[in-house]
Amino acid sequence: MVFSPDWLHHQAMVHPERLALKTADGQWTFRGLDQAVGRLAGVLRDRGIAQESRVAFHLWPSAATVMLIHALTRLQAVAVPLNTRLTTQELMALIQDAEPDLVVHDGRLALTGPLPSVAIDELITQNPSSPVDDAVLDFDALHAIVYTSGTTGRPKGVQLTVGNQWWSAVGFALNAGLHAHDRWLHVMPLFHVGGLTIVFRSVIHGSAIILEPRFDAESAWQVMSRESCTLLSVVPTMLYRLLALPEQAPASLRLVLLGGAPAPVELIHRAWNKGYPAVPTYGLTETCSQIVTLDPDDVFHRAASSGRPNLPTEVRIVRDGRPMPAGEPGEIWVRGPTVARGYWRHPDATRDAFLDGWFKTGDWGALDADGFLTVTDRVKDIIIRGGENIYPSEVEARIRTVAGIRDVGVFGLEDPEWGQIVAAAVVVDPAVPLTLETLQKHLSNQLASYKMPSKYFRVDEIPRNASGKILRTVLVQRARGLREWGESE
Amino acid sequence: MVFSPDWLHHQAMVHPERLALKTADGQWTFRGLDQAVGRLAGVLRDRGIAQESRVAFHLWPSAATVMLIHALTRLQAVAVPLNTRLTTQELMALIQDAEPDLVVHDGRLALTGPLPSVAIDELITQNPSSPVDDAVLDFDALHAIVYTSGTTGRPKGVQLTVGNQWWSAVGFALNAGLHAHDRWLHVMPLFHVGGLTIVFRSVIHGSAIILEPRFDAESAWQVMSRESCTLLSVVPTMLYRLLALPEQAPASLRLVLLGGAPAPVELIHRAWNKGYPAVPTYGLTETCSQIVTLDPDDVFHRAASSGRPNLPTEVRIVRDGRPMPAGEPGEIWVRGPTVARGYWRHPDATRDAFLDGWFKTGDWGALDADGFLTVTDRVKDIIIRGGENIYPSEVEARIRTVAGIRDVGVFGLEDPEWGQIVAAAVVVDPAVPLTLETLQKHLSNQLASYKMPSKYFRVDEIPRNASGKILRTVLVQRARGLREWGESE
Repeated sequence: MVFSPDWLHHQAMVHPERLALKTADGQWTFRGLDQAVGRLAGVLRDRGIAQESRVAFHLWPSAATVMLIHALTRLQAVAVPLNTRLTTQELMALIQDAEPDLVVHDGRLALTGPLPSVAIDELITQNPSSPVDDAVLDFDALHAIVYTSGTTGRPKGVQLTVGNQWWSAVGFALNAGLHAHDRWLHVMPLFHVGGLTIVFRSVIHGSAIILEPRFDAESAWQVMSRESCTLLSVVPTMLYRLLALPEQAPASLRLVLLGGAPAPVELIHRAWNKGYPAVPTYGLTETCSQIVTLDPDDVFHRAASSGRPNLPTEVRIVRDGRPMPAGEPGEIWVRGPTVARGYWRHPDATRDAFLDGWFKTGDWGALDADGFLTVTDRVKDIIIRGGENIYPSEVEARIRTVAGIRDVGVFGLEDPEWGQIVAAAVVVDPAVPLTLETLQKHLSNQLASYKMPSKYFRVDEIPRNASGKILRTVLVQRARGLREWGESE
Repeated sequence: MVFSPDWLHHQAMVHPERLALKTADGQWTFRGLDQAVGRLAGVLRDRGIAQESRVAFHLWPSAATVMLIHALTRLQAVAVPLNTRLTTQELMALIQDAEPDLVVHDGRLALTGPLPSVAIDELITQNPSSPVDDAVLDFDALHAIVYTSGTTGRPKGVQLTVGNQWWSAVGFALNAGLHAHDRWLHVMPLFHVGGLTIVFRSVIHGSAIILEPRFDAESAWQVMSRESCTLLSVVPTMLYRLLALPEQAPASLRLVLLGGAPAPVELIHRAWNKGYPAVPTYGLTETCSQIVTLDPDDVFHRAASSGRPNLPTEVRIVRDGRPMPAGEPGEIWVRGPTVARGYWRHPDATRDAFLDGWFKTGDWGALDADGFLTVTDRVKDIIIRGGENIYPSEVEARIRTVAGIRDVGVFGLEDPEWGQIVAAAVVVDPAVPLTLETLQKHLSNQLASYKMPSKYFRVDEIPRNASGKILRTVLVQRARGLREWGESE
């Protein structure tokens, strides 16, 4: 059992005047942030939020969002971040699954039903009966439930502990070093694990976050230059946009972590040529973000690899239940203290994916003799569009509900900007006068916009293997010779 | 349960060409050190050393000693470092207590009895049947038994785990930062926890050790300058000697950790004025070295304090079993993942000192409202001479065995160079013609030279309190007015 004093409060004691957080709204030292979080935690406690309470939040990134995340940690409550890109219907499914004690929103969430909810502005402007100054954190305690991208079945909430966040922060520091004046440009959503971990790294390392509510290449570059940012986390799509700017990278940048999707070798090399010290990383929600990183020294000869596991994480390649020797491909298994404790109220899924401390990622790859991991395929057929994971089966299930659709296969197509885009091959009943517009309109109420197919193809049949599994690679090949639905003949 | 790949092997994979170790004998990259350690581990395994084997070593600091320490970690054996300053009699007591499977020495150890032992040179020059390339370390496994300074009773071996070393390294990094090109000048004995932790920090952080077998101020300064050392751990006595040099501190030094004994404020200030960025630290064998550190920002207004606990260690002040509020003095208790799992085969001592995850240090101090720890007194009456702990009761017990000694009280006297020196007040039977020379000669076979009193005073009685406990502070006061035994009248 490991305990820790509250991380933010510790930094407020040791580095009271050091910059902790800067946004368009203002800036906070560690002391200032600590006091604001203490007040907010007091307000939440006055509303009955306590240890183990679940608090969902549907918030765009802002100083208030960061404060809420720290306040929940201090109360030893469980954060349930909600993806702000989901439709109301998708959100309701998550909320029904998480059964939060409170939903915090910023007014843009249209909730139905008698859910206890409150606007963040109301919380921030209230005075507590007394602030909550400090806490003792239990590393084994549940800290957050972070939902992976939806599947056709029930949503899967990954249970992350306090310790998972700690070890993620330590793994990064041991790999990349830790400098007293690090400043992290934070342009990632706070509802994904990648964005959340940066918030905790800040208070565990004592480094500053410069928070931009949404990514815009030009303004990200400006902010990094003005604020002398040293660290940046991006998905490949963001890096492409930064590279499209005429300027070289800001000189202060010492590392750019590239995650969320496979990073093409060509992108890495272009980035370094333009002064961005970008390294591929590999991680999942279930591993509390980044667990494998390519060392900058290896970028020029090993850019196709994701690198080696951060200490003390172990990676093993498994096929038919047996660990594979170097060079042999197989499923990527991960063991280490950042591995989640399982899925929320999902004992079957937990049993399937977690075995004796190992997490079976469902991804396919190989370790070479020098310990480099190459991720070759996503067993789960996930499409990754600009860092967002999309499950084809979920999109297919929605399309199938449309009258006139006989069959459907969803697949990813390579895209220079987004990495992948979503495409759908549909078999339409000739007796039904279904138009593309009708189909799209129907889907738009049910699917987040990033999950909506960008391209549709009308086909006569969906290729399947003997067991009925859709052959998505065949669809990708066939799509090359087809005209898109809706294109003029 | 936490596991980790072998730390040294990890660094050899990620930073093969980075300097790992440099001594007068040569230098090793992480790859080179990893290979040497793999061979040595193979030789030890061929001799039957395996998981949980106990291997004592009586070695002066050298590259071979560092390799042995890493080889034992790789074999998941238990290291039992022996203080090279002890007499044969003292050493035999430790060896009888530890019951090692093997004693490794460098030829200077005169062992009696049928102990399995081997010279380090023999191990280093042998070829193994095959090397041991890697390991999976279990954080809960026993990693070392480190003896605290002897007491009158049985020796107390502190049981440190693999995890204790890991957390010690991480606690330092989060506090002091971690730079890719850190180089640690290592001038501390490898049989104390302070010197051992530096060896593991090197392979956990990926930083280099520049090892000097013994401390000499002039050559330490030369080496630091030539090798661009950034980090240095010293006891106050060593720092005094560095400050006596005419030169300013080498410009590369970014931090000097001052441990092992209370650091006078005046020393800290003189150090900074001469360019040594020295910070007081506090730690014990039972906490796997440094757990409290003063931040450089606080040196000029808080130099009398040892600073604040490193994350995630907690410190509490306890009196009569109750935690004290800020400002109130009491016994210093420590909780955290660097706290040892207890004393080797000493259930009573373990029960007395360890309670619900807290370790009762036996030291006295206070935490102020800002969280700064000030260590005011050593409850255990320890004398700290140049970083070595000396128990007065042990020295008294030896003196009492000398014919003609009726009573004795041993106490520490302040000394500008050593911090403290050992003094003894003796009541001599007037009927016995005991000379100082006879007394000293008798003691020299039984006490390590650093424990030998530097000053003797003849007195008529030893002051005691009602329960018979020697009043050592009274002895200190009285000694001021007395002439030393042996001084000319």
